Amino acid sequence: MRPMLEEAVGEIYRNLLPEKMVVADLGCSSGPNTLVVLSEVIKIISNQCLRVGQQPPEMQFFLNDLRNNDFNNLFRSLDHVEQRLRVGKGTISVPYFVAGLPGSFYGGLFPRHSVHFFHSSYSLMWISQEQFHRDFSHFLKLRFDELVPCGQMVLSFLGRNKKDKLDGEMSTIYGLLAEALDSMVREGLVEEEKFDTFNLPLFVPSSKEVEVIVKLQGLYDIIHFQTFESNLDPFDDDLDDNVVLDNVQSGANCAKVIRSVFEPMIANHFGSAIVDDLFSRYATNVAKHLLKEKLMLPVLALSLKKKEVT
Amino acid sequence: MRPMLEEAVGEIYRNLLPEKMVVADLGCSSGPNTLVVLSEVIKIISNQCLRVGQQPPEMQFFLNDLRNNDFNNLFRSLDHVEQRLRVGKGTISVPYFVAGLPGSFYGGLFPRHSVHFFHSSYSLMWISQEQFHRDFSHFLKLRFDELVPCGQMVLSFLGRNKKDKLDGEMSTIYGLLAEALDSMVREGLVEEEKFDTFNLPLFVPSSKEVEVIVKLQGLYDIIHFQTFESNLDPFDDDLDDNVVLDNVQSGANCAKVIRSVFEPMIANHFGSAIVDDLFSRYATNVAKHLLKEKLMLPVLALSLKKKEVT
Repeated sequence: MRPMLEEAVGEIYRNLLPEKMVVADLGCSSGPNTLVVLSEVIKIISNQCLRVGQQPPEMQFFLNDLRNNDFNNLFRSLDHVEQRLRVGKGTISVPYFVAGLPGSFYGGLFPRHSVHFFHSSYSLMWISQEQFHRDFSHFLKLRFDELVPCGQMVLSFLGRNKKDKLDGEMSTIYGLLAEALDSMVREGLVEEEKFDTFNLPLFVPSSKEVEVIVKLQGLYDIIHFQTFESNLDPFDDDLDDNVVLDNVQSGANCAKVIRSVFEPMIANHFGSAIVDDLFSRYATNVAKHLLKEKLMLPVLALSLKKKEVT
Repeated sequence: MRPMLEEAVGEIYRNLLPEKMVVADLGCSSGPNTLVVLSEVIKIISNQCLRVGQQPPEMQFFLNDLRNNDFNNLFRSLDHVEQRLRVGKGTISVPYFVAGLPGSFYGGLFPRHSVHFFHSSYSLMWISQEQFHRDFSHFLKLRFDELVPCGQMVLSFLGRNKKDKLDGEMSTIYGLLAEALDSMVREGLVEEEKFDTFNLPLFVPSSKEVEVIVKLQGLYDIIHFQTFESNLDPFDDDLDDNVVLDNVQSGANCAKVIRSVFEPMIANHFGSAIVDDLFSRYATNVAKHLLKEKLMLPVLALSLKKKEVT
């Protein structure tokens, strides 16, 4: 992701040399990842300006998520951006301003032609192929209107690298969650009927399916398109393929990721009272699985550039 | 305040006919007042556009307050804006977007020349004459850099209309608070020593003192300057000077206002444990006082226009 981000942000800067640059992170959640992106973008701009000997632009960041996102927590953690930036060597000071923007990215979020760069990481998600087609097209159209000419986007989301939609890693992840639920049914903590009527819908598109939509729509040039395997544990930087140093900690990390995705659906179906217990059991199941192999997820990452209308 | 807001926003629109208009409310807190301003500005723009037969601009609102403000609550209440706007007759639909902007307005909040209109109501406050001079000048300079050419501000804050700084309504308000604290000392809920060493600093400037600073700085033209008496109870719309219909409810309303101003200082000195009890006693004291007379506060309201640099 880092090189894609670097190329996109760098190119926008070199093409436009803006005095003011607007960047939006869509579906930012309230976790630390948002702030990583923010500080990466600042560093990229800082390096660019050093290289070409230009004054840095003033950066305006918008952190977007649904209205019920914990923006208070997000704002409190903004101090960490300062810390991150101070660590970087050889950077120049880039003036930046950060706003929170509540609302769905399936609606308009910005005035026309007002955003230079959109970023979205693991926040685009679909429950069926039909919904994927409709909503992804709609998303691309909305952002097209909001981007300045020469504006770009870098998107990443869960995908699949096998043709069979039921095969692959997602089914392992689902299986471990089903096991956790099943143990709660056996202990009488979850009603059997509720368990039987539960369905966790998630559609993960292939790179081909994504490409077809972008090309059919004709609003963007695809600059890069990558498919890679991402560790479900975002803190496991170990490149050794199948050794997990601390399987208990890593299981807990994985459970957090999955919880952030599925908690709303689970709470909606079973009630929120079971959620803590469920994901604690899930973390244990994942930890056991990690003794055998790491959980890797196929991720699609693409950078898109707004087409010039001639 | 309404006519001042109307004139300022209307003039900016007519002068610039912007396709996109940026409005910031500084020190918005998380209460309903912020949303009143937001919907008023939208209505004003809507009326202007109807009058001149123009398409409305896209409005981008920034709601600013300190990082510890409850932005979650503020964002949740955004639905009320829709309700407010639907009630208005003869309006056209104005596209608008709302962001939260955490940070002190004694620092930079926006890129240069990016804001059309600043609004700030009861959020500018000073603890001494010296601080007033320094901070108010600094505030005006920061906003000058952030305003577009022909940009305007409407500010209102507590003032005084008597020369003697210790006279007038503020001393009544302080007195009733001191009474409440005193009763807690007598019941052993507050240490006498803490009470004796407590000092509630608040400097309220006269209109002359404000005018001197603005003119000395030379960055703005003063379009309007009003001094008026504002009821401490924001929900008391009754114009009959000295009849309070429900003195208990009105006392509670007044206590809320004063609490929003002084809670941080009180919690800092006495600990947050006493705050609920203290303001409940204070509400009772105010309710008793309201049987004699309403509590009216002198308020200064001014609209400023960025000077054109020639």
